[in-house]
Amino acid sequence: MLNKVLTHIDENMEESLERLFSLLRFQSISTDPVYKDACRKTADWLVADLKSMGFESSRHDTSGHPIVVGHHPGPSDDCLHVLFYGHYDVQPVDPLNLWKSAPFEPYLEEQNGEKVICARGASDDKGQLMTFVEACRAFKKEAGQLPVKVTVLFEGEEESGSSSLCPFLKEHIDELKADCALVCDTSMWDVNTPSISVSLRGLLGEEVVITAANCDLHSGYFGGAAANPIHILTRILAGLHDDDGKVTLPGFYDGVEETPLPILQSWSELDCDAENFLGPVGLFIPSGEKGRSILEQVWVRPTAEVNGISGGYEGEGFKTVIASQASAKVSFRLVHKQNPEKIREIFRDYVRRFIPADCTVEFKEHGASPAIQLPYDSPFIEATKDALSQEWSHPAVLIAMGGSIPVVGDFRSILDMETILVGFALADDRIHSPNEKYNLKSFHKGQRSWARILTILADRRINDRDSCSSR
Amino acid sequence: MLNKVLTHIDENMEESLERLFSLLRFQSISTDPVYKDACRKTADWLVADLKSMGFESSRHDTSGHPIVVGHHPGPSDDCLHVLFYGHYDVQPVDPLNLWKSAPFEPYLEEQNGEKVICARGASDDKGQLMTFVEACRAFKKEAGQLPVKVTVLFEGEEESGSSSLCPFLKEHIDELKADCALVCDTSMWDVNTPSISVSLRGLLGEEVVITAANCDLHSGYFGGAAANPIHILTRILAGLHDDDGKVTLPGFYDGVEETPLPILQSWSELDCDAENFLGPVGLFIPSGEKGRSILEQVWVRPTAEVNGISGGYEGEGFKTVIASQASAKVSFRLVHKQNPEKIREIFRDYVRRFIPADCTVEFKEHGASPAIQLPYDSPFIEATKDALSQEWSHPAVLIAMGGSIPVVGDFRSILDMETILVGFALADDRIHSPNEKYNLKSFHKGQRSWARILTILADRRINDRDSCSSR
Repeated sequence: MLNKVLTHIDENMEESLERLFSLLRFQSISTDPVYKDACRKTADWLVADLKSMGFESSRHDTSGHPIVVGHHPGPSDDCLHVLFYGHYDVQPVDPLNLWKSAPFEPYLEEQNGEKVICARGASDDKGQLMTFVEACRAFKKEAGQLPVKVTVLFEGEEESGSSSLCPFLKEHIDELKADCALVCDTSMWDVNTPSISVSLRGLLGEEVVITAANCDLHSGYFGGAAANPIHILTRILAGLHDDDGKVTLPGFYDGVEETPLPILQSWSELDCDAENFLGPVGLFIPSGEKGRSILEQVWVRPTAEVNGISGGYEGEGFKTVIASQASAKVSFRLVHKQNPEKIREIFRDYVRRFIPADCTVEFKEHGASPAIQLPYDSPFIEATKDALSQEWSHPAVLIAMGGSIPVVGDFRSILDMETILVGFALADDRIHSPNEKYNLKSFHKGQRSWARILTILADRRINDRDSCSSR
Repeated sequence: MLNKVLTHIDENMEESLERLFSLLRFQSISTDPVYKDACRKTADWLVADLKSMGFESSRHDTSGHPIVVGHHPGPSDDCLHVLFYGHYDVQPVDPLNLWKSAPFEPYLEEQNGEKVICARGASDDKGQLMTFVEACRAFKKEAGQLPVKVTVLFEGEEESGSSSLCPFLKEHIDELKADCALVCDTSMWDVNTPSISVSLRGLLGEEVVITAANCDLHSGYFGGAAANPIHILTRILAGLHDDDGKVTLPGFYDGVEETPLPILQSWSELDCDAENFLGPVGLFIPSGEKGRSILEQVWVRPTAEVNGISGGYEGEGFKTVIASQASAKVSFRLVHKQNPEKIREIFRDYVRRFIPADCTVEFKEHGASPAIQLPYDSPFIEATKDALSQEWSHPAVLIAMGGSIPVVGDFRSILDMETILVGFALADDRIHSPNEKYNLKSFHKGQRSWARILTILADRRINDRDSCSSR
């Protein structure tokens, strides 16, 4: 059956592309209220498209933009149930003058020998979500059914904060809970190498405001006697790392795990060194923990990073002032089982030790989310990896992401369900930028990839239903 | 003769106050071009007043506001020659609504049991400069002559950068060069204790801009691998001081001298501790070099002070960015024979050691002026100290100033002449603020003080003409 489905996909590329173009024509910019109606129409189009394939689908209005949910039964009552997530909203298009053509009038063109689909949202995330929809359609056309039970969830606020998503998940737990979530919103490792993201770093944000004197002081009159909050702050921040690039906070590395050697080995084969990772931004020396490869540094090692610092006179010229206040925004990328709230306390205790008795410190919270680490050897991951490796010329690699994808944490915490992150975007897709594109090959082989993934997931009848939702 | 002069001063306070009021009525705000004409008229008034006392005086127009110069011969050709400096321009008056009365309509009132003169410029510097002018007038009236040769120099741009002063000094060296300069623009130690400022700290300003990546980076994607310029900067700045508050730059203390024990002893008698020095600004722990009194810390010890720091996201909320650039403004207060240019190089060398090979640092100069240290035992200082001690209830103290007074450096470098800084302002005069005042006692006893100073300077016929201009 799989071969028939793959052939169907191959032979119906023109029609599937036409449907994607229809979807791309909607100006579903979620952050700008001007496009509220466009977002609603996009959701309606998706509902209708799902219905045309036999999904029981509906538009759920929220205080923001609608959420689309669709359900399709599987071949039997006890079959695997997957929840597929994508988002139909897109980023704004400005600066418009940098686009070669109108952002919402999709077209095909050749770039560097590859056919690419050009439009806002082609890659992020309309093109990606349609790879899954088209795979389902091919199954329905050839087999009359889907190999697994499928629920789809299309969000319209991913690019503007997803404020409606969590409440929606909480209100629809029974309807949305599945064995496993599939998300198609990530990239391939390279044009020939598919990837599954199994580690997502968590994030803890803290703001520190130190107050010394009750007003700015003249540095001639007070310099040498009055506490300078910038001096205090720089000592605090400079002390966060030792000479080997490790974070010095006591207990900071509690819960951090070593990455299995075979995984490290597979990363070393990706041929990613400091030069090609940092070169494009003008750097070439890894600044993180010594003795770790650059991919370890950004994927599976925790960090402490000062994202902003401010104090005293920052304008043109010079002012001999001792500031009353100085502040910094500090974030920690967290991995594995590091506990954000515990690290917040460790950090605050550390900072307080530097504050003289006549100065004060104030902290502001800026979010805390733990890391997500899927088991490298989960049967879901193994099955997906095998499926992808059959489709692409290079075997799939298990990679990590240095940043967070909040929906993965929400699926875990609200639906008690793990997520498999598979995507076919490429690093040069210019997502969020003018002239966004999605390779036709990504759209085509993405569909074929999902067909293979759903087939293998169904065939293997994964026994350990808990393997993916274990915590 | 001195007694007659002092009596004349006492008996003519009403008239001298009326003249001061006339001067205070001019709206000589130098920073605002609207008051250009007012500044010219103020200068004309001063020229006329000096002429009325037998000075050969004139208004010198500049690209800014006029400079007034007046000359009066002494009793003999080889008598002492002093240059008296004051400024007739004043600070702007905003916020006007905080004034109890119109800033340029002077009046007398009682505040805390003391009669005070209220007006913009009453203390800074019209009231102060007139103490000297009135002392001269009393001499002329009673003795028909002045005890020393006097040149006066009244500037009109002190509150707005003094840009015309240096060129003027350079063009008029022969006319202005005297044995010694007298400046009346400083404060008493307290309401009963006159002071002479003998140490002025110098100042070196540097700006450091560190550039890492060629654009701001996403801290999720690059965090842990890419150099963060804020981290580099905080290490640099945190390393400027050791745990004892000393500056760590090698060679930084070259040229710093220990203050003579009798001077330190006289300061300890001033009963100025951390609590009363720092208390008004909300602090109570001296932050400078351990083992130094608070007055040493702010008067005769050098400092390294971060006056401003900036980098990354400084707005509301949070942004997980790794900045491309971070910068700081750093100033050094210098004492004794510290060499500003040498310290600039030491500092830059120190900074460069922290810069990774893939990052860059740029420096911007923001001025460099050496410290000024008069010999504590110079005969001019001794004479002035004796004169002040005779007038006031407490003996005069030799103090220092943590900040710079540029004109003192200009007199030294251009006219090869040292300056005696004597002033009768008080810490609560609200200079530069609404409701500026000058105690009537300051105005009255200030005149008497100058009468005594000029008399003693003349009587002692100070032999060592070079004692004050030695370098």
